[in-house]
Amino acid sequence: MDSGKVNDVGILAMDIYFPPTCVQQEALEAHDGASKGKYTIGLGQECMAFCTEVEDVISMSLTVVTSLLEKYQIDPKQIGRLEVGSETVIDKSKSIKTWIMQIFEESGNTDVEGVDSTNACYGGTAALFNCVNWVESSSWDGRYGLVVCTDSAVYAEGPARPTGGAAAIAMLIGPNAPISFESKFRGTHMTHVYDFYKPNLASEYPVVDGKLSQTCYLMALDSCYKRFCSKFEKFEGKQFSISDADYFVFHSPYNKLVQKSFARLYFNDYLRNSSVVEKDAREKLEQFSNLTGDESYQSRELEKVSQQVSKPLYDVKVQPSTLLPKQIGNMYTASIYAAFASVIHNKYSTLMGQRIVMFSYGSGLSSTMFSFKLQDGQHPFNISNIASVLNVSEKLEKRHVISPENFVETLKLMEHRYGAKGFETSKDTSLLSPGTFYLVNVDSMYRRYYAKKDTEEEATSAKSLSCKNSSLANGH
Amino acid sequence: MDSGKVNDVGILAMDIYFPPTCVQQEALEAHDGASKGKYTIGLGQECMAFCTEVEDVISMSLTVVTSLLEKYQIDPKQIGRLEVGSETVIDKSKSIKTWIMQIFEESGNTDVEGVDSTNACYGGTAALFNCVNWVESSSWDGRYGLVVCTDSAVYAEGPARPTGGAAAIAMLIGPNAPISFESKFRGTHMTHVYDFYKPNLASEYPVVDGKLSQTCYLMALDSCYKRFCSKFEKFEGKQFSISDADYFVFHSPYNKLVQKSFARLYFNDYLRNSSVVEKDAREKLEQFSNLTGDESYQSRELEKVSQQVSKPLYDVKVQPSTLLPKQIGNMYTASIYAAFASVIHNKYSTLMGQRIVMFSYGSGLSSTMFSFKLQDGQHPFNISNIASVLNVSEKLEKRHVISPENFVETLKLMEHRYGAKGFETSKDTSLLSPGTFYLVNVDSMYRRYYAKKDTEEEATSAKSLSCKNSSLANGH
Repeated sequence: MDSGKVNDVGILAMDIYFPPTCVQQEALEAHDGASKGKYTIGLGQECMAFCTEVEDVISMSLTVVTSLLEKYQIDPKQIGRLEVGSETVIDKSKSIKTWIMQIFEESGNTDVEGVDSTNACYGGTAALFNCVNWVESSSWDGRYGLVVCTDSAVYAEGPARPTGGAAAIAMLIGPNAPISFESKFRGTHMTHVYDFYKPNLASEYPVVDGKLSQTCYLMALDSCYKRFCSKFEKFEGKQFSISDADYFVFHSPYNKLVQKSFARLYFNDYLRNSSVVEKDAREKLEQFSNLTGDESYQSRELEKVSQQVSKPLYDVKVQPSTLLPKQIGNMYTASIYAAFASVIHNKYSTLMGQRIVMFSYGSGLSSTMFSFKLQDGQHPFNISNIASVLNVSEKLEKRHVISPENFVETLKLMEHRYGAKGFETSKDTSLLSPGTFYLVNVDSMYRRYYAKKDTEEEATSAKSLSCKNSSLANGH
Repeated sequence: MDSGKVNDVGILAMDIYFPPTCVQQEALEAHDGASKGKYTIGLGQECMAFCTEVEDVISMSLTVVTSLLEKYQIDPKQIGRLEVGSETVIDKSKSIKTWIMQIFEESGNTDVEGVDSTNACYGGTAALFNCVNWVESSSWDGRYGLVVCTDSAVYAEGPARPTGGAAAIAMLIGPNAPISFESKFRGTHMTHVYDFYKPNLASEYPVVDGKLSQTCYLMALDSCYKRFCSKFEKFEGKQFSISDADYFVFHSPYNKLVQKSFARLYFNDYLRNSSVVEKDAREKLEQFSNLTGDESYQSRELEKVSQQVSKPLYDVKVQPSTLLPKQIGNMYTASIYAAFASVIHNKYSTLMGQRIVMFSYGSGLSSTMFSFKLQDGQHPFNISNIASVLNVSEKLEKRHVISPENFVETLKLMEHRYGAKGFETSKDTSLLSPGTFYLVNVDSMYRRYYAKKDTEEEATSAKSLSCKNSSLANGH
């Protein structure tokens, strides 16, 4: 073991890609005949990104990885591990990672460890932990790790449909990172539940029990927070409270649950007699202090009061993380890292020395609370450069708003395309930016071919990549 | 980082479970109207295990994990990480790991990191690497890791059907292990190919191009061996050849490919001018020394001659690993570890100080060559105890041979059951040993309920476990 050689292992660089096509929640509300404010206030969502027929989790991964390597000028040969977190299954055996390998094979690098990690929205966090552990392990070969979170969240018609979304995030992993793990403070909670799952293999849509899933999420949050606090106290010798972190970033299926979650942490701090809860708030929460755990998850009154008293802290410590999840929707594995990217986008100039607590949740269920310490890095691996590569404002501004009718039609088409073979897509790339990968066709053997939208010259090179694979697949 | 505190991280303990139901390859040959010896000599297989309607990858995992914890007297609270490798998808979002959590929840332990790793037959190796890296990382909390490889390999009627199999293997991970990783010697090769994949989401059967998959396997083997040798030479300062390892263990889709693989390593050593290839063999191989890589993969003559000249070494260094893969068939993620278990079973008294080289392959494709060093351990974590827990002979002897007609009928039933809901199984546990978990029913919401075959008292306790979950799933 190369003991002690690596320090501050964490995230060196990030990039995000989301489809340029989106539907406004307010318009969707009206289209669905839902009561006004049901999606925008009830769920707390503003807009929802979705893949049209030319994009999927593989194309988004190819796009974001290519972009990250280019923007931070990383030679593909410098990547020694690549892990993908996803719950969007296009193939049940072949990992998404192997499709991304096309980028590395081009440069002659096939020596890249890692595969896909799966458990609902938690897979990206599992992939991230795996990459960090690799860098700290005796098998590390000195190269970078790369984590990709990629998902397309779509739901059958009904109350869950507005909680969709789509995005891919890439994160470069290595030592001396500006975003490093405080790896001793980690609280994990995993159990067997059926809150959200995908047992209907022929359908892209999940089976979801919304109410159960919300309760499971909050129970997991409580359990992880308890463990996180106890580890903090063990190693730091003092009690942890929400005042010890500058930001809290939650997995965000929809914003309303994030509001409830922070209120729940605040209520936990109240129960733990933390001084962060002031006299006024303490008086208002006292009436709930004798509720059993189960009662407390069901109490609407507690939910309301705790959100109200924690609101000022929410605005400071949580609101900066909500931009992308509100604008894009649930991105499953990418959601929590899109929320984290929102903090970087909003606060990049003031993050040095700060602590960010993350809560990752995947139904089924897996959950972990962990924390990052932010520090100065060296260009290109510093916070302000990461903010500039993420380029959140421009990416949001360049989107195209699609009508609810068009959105519903697209989902209908995709229902037929899911698991299908022998078709060509429209190849309509008019809404895509140059550099975006798109699906061209799926042949009679289910093999998928992608191309890259770009200048004439680059388009030819992308074509030849897909031809090479075609010839490999047929050649033997 | 707890630098330098952990040494010899690896496998402390193992157990294997495979269904007690199997079909003889000789009988299947006759039933299928195949030419005599096509399965037994052409594929090199003897027998094939398969799950009846009461078993699946979840029940096998529950069985093998429970058995390992009991036999090595491990308190479930001592497990801090549990990772599953599998390519048998029962749910596309909820990990198999979460079903196994039932065992740990019973003891109050929900603080267990890790999810499922996916890429064809390679997922178990990914899970193993992840667990080992965790023990060597700064986030390790001092507890054990546990890796489960579980798969049921079934194929549509046709030439691939006799290459099925089923098993689950559990491996306990920690420091000071009798089976430790030589983590610096690792050769990985990953690329994008369509040799075997599962794009038809509604079917349990894969799409497989047998010829391409074999070529991909051998190309990956060459590439990994080259990298493994180069790392060995870098760290040990001398050339590696097959004489530097006592045993070679290959992922075994069918035994014939294992024979070809060892011959291929031998041919590599010949091309590298290794002294392990004696004069006589060198003369016979000389005619192939100018073949291009592609030609060499296609040359039947090279295949024949290299197998012939390497046969004496195959008998010593490979044959001891072939017992379980020949008797059970392809167990996907579990295959390579079942082959490794066969070496322990056959050679446990002579393994101290020996090196075992492993080649893990998963279509799509991912592959790694790595090595174990075996040493004395402390009871219960020593090689002879592992051999006694594995109890291979008795498990093989206690199996029930099922007729090909019955086997085909079972597969037909399972085709209808795959992805289905709202059914009860026969609950016929007459062929299962006490302690085996089995599937009882799948309800109208696709929720799966398992019970454990045992004494009256234990059976009641298992029932209450499944009731508890049922009430949790319905209660909110």
